Amino acid sequence: MLSFEIDALIQTALKEDIPYADLSSSIFAPEHHSKAYLLAKQDGVFCGAQCFTRTFELLDQSTVFNLRKKDGDRFQSGDVLLELETHTAPLLQGERTALNFLQHLSGIATTTARMVELLRGTRCAVTDTRKTLPGLRSLQKYAVACGGGKNHRFGLSDAVMLKDNHIDACGSIAEAIAAVRRNIGHMVKIEVETRTLDEVEQALDACADVIMFDNMSITQMERGVALARNHKNGIRVVMEASGDVTDANIRAIAETGVDVISLGMLTHSVRTCNISMRIG
Amino acid sequence: MLSFEIDALIQTALKEDIPYADLSSSIFAPEHHSKAYLLAKQDGVFCGAQCFTRTFELLDQSTVFNLRKKDGDRFQSGDVLLELETHTAPLLQGERTALNFLQHLSGIATTTARMVELLRGTRCAVTDTRKTLPGLRSLQKYAVACGGGKNHRFGLSDAVMLKDNHIDACGSIAEAIAAVRRNIGHMVKIEVETRTLDEVEQALDACADVIMFDNMSITQMERGVALARNHKNGIRVVMEASGDVTDANIRAIAETGVDVISLGMLTHSVRTCNISMRIG
Amino acid sequence: MLSFEIDALIQTALKEDIPYADLSSSIFAPEHHSKAYLLAKQDGVFCGAQCFTRTFELLDQSTVFNLRKKDGDRFQSGDVLLELETHTAPLLQGERTALNFLQHLSGIATTTARMVELLRGTRCAVTDTRKTLPGLRSLQKYAVACGGGKNHRFGLSDAVMLKDNHIDACGSIAEAIAAVRRNIGHMVKIEVETRTLDEVEQALDACADVIMFDNMSITQMERGVALARNHKNGIRVVMEASGDVTDANIRAIAETGVDVISLGMLTHSVRTCNISMRIG
Amino acid sequence: MLSFEIDALIQTALKEDIPYADLSSSIFAPEHHSKAYLLAKQDGVFCGAQCFTRTFELLDQSTVFNLRKKDGDRFQSGDVLLELETHTAPLLQGERTALNFLQHLSGIATTTARMVELLRGTRCAVTDTRKTLPGLRSLQKYAVACGGGKNHRFGLSDAVMLKDNHIDACGSIAEAIAAVRRNIGHMVKIEVETRTLDEVEQALDACADVIMFDNMSITQMERGVALARNHKNGIRVVMEASGDVTDANIRAIAETGVDVISLGMLTHSVRTCNISMRIG
Amino acid sequence: MLSFEIDALIQTALKEDIPYADLSSSIFAPEHHSKAYLLAKQDGVFCGAQCFTRTFELLDQSTVFNLRKKDGDRFQSGDVLLELETHTAPLLQGERTALNFLQHLSGIATTTARMVELLRGTRCAVTDTRKTLPGLRSLQKYAVACGGGKNHRFGLSDAVMLKDNHIDACGSIAEAIAAVRRNIGHMVKIEVETRTLDEVEQALDACADVIMFDNMSITQMERGVALARNHKNGIRVVMEASGDVTDANIRAIAETGVDVISLGMLTHSVRTCNISMRIG
Amino acid sequence: MLSFEIDALIQTALKEDIPYADLSSSIFAPEHHSKAYLLAKQDGVFCGAQCFTRTFELLDQSTVFNLRKKDGDRFQSGDVLLELETHTAPLLQGERTALNFLQHLSGIATTTARMVELLRGTRCAVTDTRKTLPGLRSLQKYAVACGGGKNHRFGLSDAVMLKDNHIDACGSIAEAIAAVRRNIGHMVKIEVETRTLDEVEQALDACADVIMFDNMSITQMERGVALARNHKNGIRVVMEASGDVTDANIRAIAETGVDVISLGMLTHSVRTCNISMRIG
Repeated sequence: MLSFEIDALIQTALKEDIPYADLSSSIFAPEHHSKAYLLAKQDGVFCGAQCFTRTFELLDQSTVFNLRKKDGDRFQSGDVLLELETHTAPLLQGERTALNFLQHLSGIATTTARMVELLRGTRCAVTDTRKTLPGLRSLQKYAVACGGGKNHRFGLSDAVMLKDNHIDACGSIAEAIAAVRRNIGHMVKIEVETRTLDEVEQALDACADVIMFDNMSITQMERGVALARNHKNGIRVVMEASGDVTDANIRAIAETGVDVISLGMLTHSVRTCNISMRIG
Repeated sequence: MLSFEIDALIQTALKEDIPYADLSSSIFAPEHHSKAYLLAKQDGVFCGAQCFTRTFELLDQSTVFNLRKKDGDRFQSGDVLLELETHTAPLLQGERTALNFLQHLSGIATTTARMVELLRGTRCAVTDTRKTLPGLRSLQKYAVACGGGKNHRFGLSDAVMLKDNHIDACGSIAEAIAAVRRNIGHMVKIEVETRTLDEVEQALDACADVIMFDNMSITQMERGVALARNHKNGIRVVMEASGDVTDANIRAIAETGVDVISLGMLTHSVRTCNISMRIG
Repeated sequence: MLSFEIDALIQTALKEDIPYADLSSSIFAPEHHSKAYLLAKQDGVFCGAQCFTRTFELLDQSTVFNLRKKDGDRFQSGDVLLELETHTAPLLQGERTALNFLQHLSGIATTTARMVELLRGTRCAVTDTRKTLPGLRSLQKYAVACGGGKNHRFGLSDAVMLKDNHIDACGSIAEAIAAVRRNIGHMVKIEVETRTLDEVEQALDACADVIMFDNMSITQMERGVALARNHKNGIRVVMEASGDVTDANIRAIAETGVDVISLGMLTHSVRTCNISMRIG
Repeated sequence: MLSFEIDALIQTALKEDIPYADLSSSIFAPEHHSKAYLLAKQDGVFCGAQCFTRTFELLDQSTVFNLRKKDGDRFQSGDVLLELETHTAPLLQGERTALNFLQHLSGIATTTARMVELLRGTRCAVTDTRKTLPGLRSLQKYAVACGGGKNHRFGLSDAVMLKDNHIDACGSIAEAIAAVRRNIGHMVKIEVETRTLDEVEQALDACADVIMFDNMSITQMERGVALARNHKNGIRVVMEASGDVTDANIRAIAETGVDVISLGMLTHSVRTCNISMRIG
Repeated sequence: MLSFEIDALIQTALKEDIPYADLSSSIFAPEHHSKAYLLAKQDGVFCGAQCFTRTFELLDQSTVFNLRKKDGDRFQSGDVLLELETHTAPLLQGERTALNFLQHLSGIATTTARMVELLRGTRCAVTDTRKTLPGLRSLQKYAVACGGGKNHRFGLSDAVMLKDNHIDACGSIAEAIAAVRRNIGHMVKIEVETRTLDEVEQALDACADVIMFDNMSITQMERGVALARNHKNGIRVVMEASGDVTDANIRAIAETGVDVISLGMLTHSVRTCNISMRIG
Repeated sequence: MLSFEIDALIQTALKEDIPYADLSSSIFAPEHHSKAYLLAKQDGVFCGAQCFTRTFELLDQSTVFNLRKKDGDRFQSGDVLLELETHTAPLLQGERTALNFLQHLSGIATTTARMVELLRGTRCAVTDTRKTLPGLRSLQKYAVACGGGKNHRFGLSDAVMLKDNHIDACGSIAEAIAAVRRNIGHMVKIEVETRTLDEVEQALDACADVIMFDNMSITQMERGVALARNHKNGIRVVMEASGDVTDANIRAIAETGVDVISLGMLTHSVRTCNISMRIG
């Protein structure tokens, strides 16, 4: 996300917090200033430094920061993550907005890192989905990357995913792939959602770039992987597992040999990261 | 949130999903159309009808809906919540965006309703905080209301909350209240955060409109409530409990006699509501 | 109003003055620069420094200012209020826009101060209304505060005002207050418009936070104040007078004992403040 | 001003009135509807029909209007100007915003019409200036036209006005005109501000399209007009009077023979037009 | 491009044509209406129907169209492409803006179609580049598709292109591909720019998805194609030719066996399509 | 065009190139930096320095430039036009966008200069039209000026052009001019399109400010010029030639004595200027 777009998003957040004026901070003299620091109250992965610092800079250009962590760094409960000094009125005006960004993004990075850790030693990657919160997709996907995950397609313009409806409308997986290839350029990959091994074979025959095993059992996925590895066309297709992935089953899924596991919960059910700001 | 602002937010979400063109739906003939319905896969409270329907209407004005639930209605796993019919390309283009809104807002309403249910029979209300996601505050607070919660202040422009820093800068709770009253109009309420019973008494003496018990024990809160009820100035102050509220302790907190319990998790750690769209 | 919003408003004003290019200033060499100063041609209260200076800074970052007055300061005819130095082309491009802001806001502050002065020695405050000019509400209300007035509610989201229509729809003042309390949070005040002493009593009985005497006579208002002071529920309600307030009657109104007098003319019928810019 | 720009301006005004939700109207059932009408409480000229009606249409597409006056029509105190019917919640949400537009624009049209009336029988036109309120220039100039006035240049991009500073920088009026002609196209007129008869002659010699008599006495203006009429180059120059024009002196100024009189007060010191909305 | 984004672009264009008011059309009575039609004055490919029709609809919802051609259709000089009927003022206000869109996009489609025609019978596709005009990329790329071309990557977020600088910074093509693969997801293709056959071999060894022959001679490209077809890793790489492509050499380039030829001139040096609007 | 509007346009262009993230530059370390320079590969006129430099400054404030040419300067093939140094990631992110602006604007300036050169020694000026590309009018007209051309009216708000339709609706040229004069202010010029010498005489009689000879033959234009020079009303009208102007006939047209020749192709059929950026 470009810097000026992050600024625009912060401005939107500040405006929804302060549509007219900050009534509470009116008691501070303009020259009153304060120090503050960010204190981690859990272990986690830091994400959102730019959102956090720009919030205060947009309110007061004189704000000074000492960043002890950068995006992607791990921290432990009790760590001081960042120190800042600025005038007191903008400090209190920006506090909630800056934390709302930081805690949300660090929450995503922290959960992603836990999932990645669960797959350590396998060749399998963790990836996100399009199940993001409105207006926050780029930031949320950035947080997934900071947590060690990979980004799936960003949206409908950068890659093709053929689902039931596409396939039904065209008659078969092969026909759907052929139809879409007529419309897209040579830089676009095609993924096919499959629910049965028969569909996996059809997708392999039709030279899909990526095959998603949608809500398949471990056994089905193992067989799907075998089909792909032994397929006659010899192309190295990417295999993706999707559906009801949890801490409990993610490693077993990875051990089927799939290349990628996608998790909607990374971005649709984010648990905030417990970080607080202390003033003084 | 005004209707044209909801439209603007939906457009932002659609643009972040489709910055150029939908590559996948190019295979459908323009006149190809489909029916679809929303299926609940858990019990919950419905919220987000306007966001959902406007997403499709912005893509295709000919979309027709049959809403079986309206915002605030309860539903059970297996219920069909809504039916729609539109052209297939816009149906697939809007599906993910529309669900991202609906599942997030229904998730908030569902959790709020659970908390409200836990307080049934007490006089205590559940309320939200400013710990919302950037750009989504109005919608999130609306979802809290749909779940039976009350809205705390919307931001820094509609009410005063005096915290440590305000009080320290002025010398005392009484002086901070006096200072802020000089700056605000007659339509604004003042809340004071307290951490000790001594602070509660100071806030009562200074005629705060609302007193927050911040991270107090059940016993402290009981004493705080007693102080307020017996205070010489006879004004009916509102008492709010805040900090580490869970399903396990929320009823005990309410039974101390506080008027309101505020929960950040309603909006900062939302669990998506499991609703899926079925086509055909 | 946040600084970046003021910048956005100035940019709107500059764009409506210069949609393509400034045809007249094309004759100045880019390096040609000038000094200028603001000369008061009447007594008044200064307001709009940030709008004024940012206009030139947005056109030319090298502009240098010497502010002799700050917002809220009184000045006399003949005073030099501010000096600036910048390149001549941006000086002439920004002149009209910067003055349009400054003269309007200083006009509001000056009139407000005159009204406040008329009430000197009473406990009664002057307050504004929602009768503001489109797009300028925050700035206009800020100017009222600079003139020594207080801000009434900013809009429909920060406080409740129950009028005839609300009351008629619910059946009575008591029922209207009860109905709205079911929908609003604990940080919101409720004002009731009254036109008769009977309505005043109903509003007192129903524990309204603020009671507006709408277009009442001096005698009626005196009786209304007496009712409020002697009411059995002992709550200190705020009493507001509204309607046809002029220089001639404002003090008599205040002396009835009302707490606040609201004046639409402060913002809807602004007389520009006579300040001119002299170059050279 | 294009229709979609008027809509955007109305949306800005509605957002500054309702940043989150309308707290007061929550008591009306969604289907509750009302009739209302606009009542003139003074004589005047109507202006702002589109702003008024679009405000309600943007809130509720089902609103129905009966316009009894159109922009530019005269009305008398007691006249019903417009009737409408819509749902009660949007009616109360839009009332203040719609009136803020209508009363401001009708105020401008009404004052302009009074000035035009004072010149009846002369060949002299009333015109506005760039002394407009930020964001409202197009609407304010439209209101001047509705009142029977003419529009001066809209901004710095559509015509040239050479002032002291331009002339000083170039050395003389002739040189300033020559310099600016090198930069502008063949569709642009040049006006020169003059303060002495000598400057008037210079401007005539240099073939200015328009000559402004800036703060001249009646006698000076009479002589200026004579100079222009008898000038050797025979071109029909337009003569404009400007500076401290009032109801008292405007006719005398017109009778000097000037073609146009410009008044800043038409737009910078607007007196609201007394029109109220009655519901029920 | 989503419909509401096209509307936003048209509104930008209308605002830059009419910042205040249309001075010329003020002479038409509001009810005056006219018929008009689009006349082709050259052979070509039609593109831009939505931009054209929405321009008038945004000015006047009552406009009625009869489209005789749809996007992608061929037409001949003398053909009537479209008929419309609307009020005369909006007709003249929208005419130039609507044509500016239509003539530009039809110009792109027409040139693209000529290039595609020159390759008839080969398996080689024509594709565009990122050399587009600011703000118009989506529309320009859509026009290329209407002319029978394919779209190259839309921007920097949907595919990877490794150039000299990337390769130099990493040490080799293999290392650059490895480095970028660590950062991107499984849905992203990688193209490598090559200038020598040695670089082609490196790119093949490193399993690039697409190889660009940048400004190579016909002979070099023939050898590059042979290398790719016989490469040991057996993957079907896409080969793209780029640089100084003209009508004269495009077929010879295609006959080297490359899959795609990219042309910047399709979008950076557009020749308008000669279509005029006739009124009456 | 105001600087902040140029920034907004650049941001639009950057966002359409990088809606999410730059996938290719992720391989450069944040501190990796590079030098680059602009190399002319044809003779031309430089235009677009601000667009070019601001693109990089918006991505990286630390970018340093050495401008060897300024807007309007001529350059020759092989000239180095500009040098810059910045971090490598923003350098590659901004390269294409910055060049898209610069090459387009320099293309316009270069063609305009060629046309101006063809008229050297005549008194005739080259001017543009409203046939510009959506969103780029101000920049394109600025480029025409940099190439030595003059700007025709910017749009429909700054001057009047009466065409067939206006004249037909009013009955005659004289009536159309009279009608429009009733609606416009004294700073607006009126141009009349003529197709016959009879229409030229009517326009002269009606005191049009400018007369366009629309698609007339050389002979017709010569006669039109003679009519204008000898007309009894003695006013110096401006004569403009328009329609099918080429390198081959532009001088002959000028020699008929017309004051201005307008060319749509300057902005509607721009040939990009061949300038490339070399890194390292």
